[in-house]
Amino acid sequence: MKKGSRIVIIGSGNVAEALCRAIPAAGYEVVQVFARNPERGKALAGIAGCDWENRPEKLSEADLYILSVSDKAIPELSTLLDFGNGLVVHTSGSCGLEELSSGIARRGVFYPLQTFTAGREVSFRGIPLFIEATNEEDYKLLEGLASALSDSVYRSDSILRRKMHVAAVFVCNFVNDLYVIGEQWMQSNGMDFSVLKPLIAETTRKMLDSPSPLSVQTGPAVREDRPTIEKHLQLLENYPDLKTIYEVLTEHIINMKKTADGKL
Amino acid sequence: MKKGSRIVIIGSGNVAEALCRAIPAAGYEVVQVFARNPERGKALAGIAGCDWENRPEKLSEADLYILSVSDKAIPELSTLLDFGNGLVVHTSGSCGLEELSSGIARRGVFYPLQTFTAGREVSFRGIPLFIEATNEEDYKLLEGLASALSDSVYRSDSILRRKMHVAAVFVCNFVNDLYVIGEQWMQSNGMDFSVLKPLIAETTRKMLDSPSPLSVQTGPAVREDRPTIEKHLQLLENYPDLKTIYEVLTEHIINMKKTADGKL
Repeated sequence: MKKGSRIVIIGSGNVAEALCRAIPAAGYEVVQVFARNPERGKALAGIAGCDWENRPEKLSEADLYILSVSDKAIPELSTLLDFGNGLVVHTSGSCGLEELSSGIARRGVFYPLQTFTAGREVSFRGIPLFIEATNEEDYKLLEGLASALSDSVYRSDSILRRKMHVAAVFVCNFVNDLYVIGEQWMQSNGMDFSVLKPLIAETTRKMLDSPSPLSVQTGPAVREDRPTIEKHLQLLENYPDLKTIYEVLTEHIINMKKTADGKL
Repeated sequence: MKKGSRIVIIGSGNVAEALCRAIPAAGYEVVQVFARNPERGKALAGIAGCDWENRPEKLSEADLYILSVSDKAIPELSTLLDFGNGLVVHTSGSCGLEELSSGIARRGVFYPLQTFTAGREVSFRGIPLFIEATNEEDYKLLEGLASALSDSVYRSDSILRRKMHVAAVFVCNFVNDLYVIGEQWMQSNGMDFSVLKPLIAETTRKMLDSPSPLSVQTGPAVREDRPTIEKHLQLLENYPDLKTIYEVLTEHIINMKKTADGKL
């Protein structure tokens, strides 16, 4: 995709917002933000430096339409809108390319493997982008845009993309849930969650600096320190969901250790 | 504890190493590293700028003995050694003060809530220290040392300390296990783990910048996006342990969301 190509962003979620920042910065033109929600749509149009629209008949002509909406809205919206001869991509990790209406001649996927938050800027440069298109010419167009945004571009079919999404659920969504547990546990014991923050920061920093997370695993499970594990389970007696999570992850760590030891 | 007080570090693990760096830097004197393992013991003595010893009869006289050994070695070692009239503390999150031999007149606990790794320097300034002693005078001595090392010092009995240790298991050991899962999942799909690193870094950074981890939870579970969850579970069909972890954490996130919504 050549610089100066006309791009329409459809949707006003966190991924759409991130694209509204990154695409103009990379020298491409966002000509319209098309979104149902006027408040968010106008805000994103302001970021991208273009107009906001929500009437289907006013959808701008463009070289590329990026459909950055919830998974379940993809089929309906891709059927509703008239994209002319433009290339249409969605940004979902778990939806196939075929979730885009088969009436669209040129289809693709543009999936950024990152967690996006409204109002928070992230550099696209390091974000892995998984792209796919129905024909090689369109793939090359998408690759051009992707390479302008990021140093980490991968060709990916729906299965690989979905597998990457599963990985993201484990290392992002589930990790954050453990932070949620940490916060609630601290509060229920009259302690401030901030007490855990140095430990949380160092845990991730240390792993990122290490050759492998397996090499920096610490704690009672990897030591198979059953007396400590038992004491912890007693403290969790009145929190059956936390107890289950503790047991399941502890057994996984013990099994990982055994497998790793067996390999040596 | 006054600056210039004589301190002996017993043990040569990762916590002992961190103390050998931090204590002299705070103006206290480590007069001896007492450790079974000569190689590690000498290395730590080198860091602390003192001698290494492993013969019980050669244990140096000191104001404070910090027993930084594995939980199960605490009772035996505290019985074996003659500490004279020195104050003796252990550094374990899950052991009670009474794990130190009752023959010791002055006992305490000095628990740093952090993950320590051999060869890796961490600033003690932000590390929460949980301290305890059998009498108020010794508590004040420990508090003096703790305050010289860290801005975050808490009086803590065995129960609170153990609860903090449980929190650490969730936000450190279990988080790292999710990274291990991420690495193995990527490898088994022919992808490099490094692809996940920008997502991992941003997930933790974002949470640390947020008012609460609950406010930044993303992913299919918090959206209760059952079709995506089902697709993910299909991909995990041949990995029963990962499937269980996926199910348990997904249900927890859904329940947290419902509880939070109910509260609003």
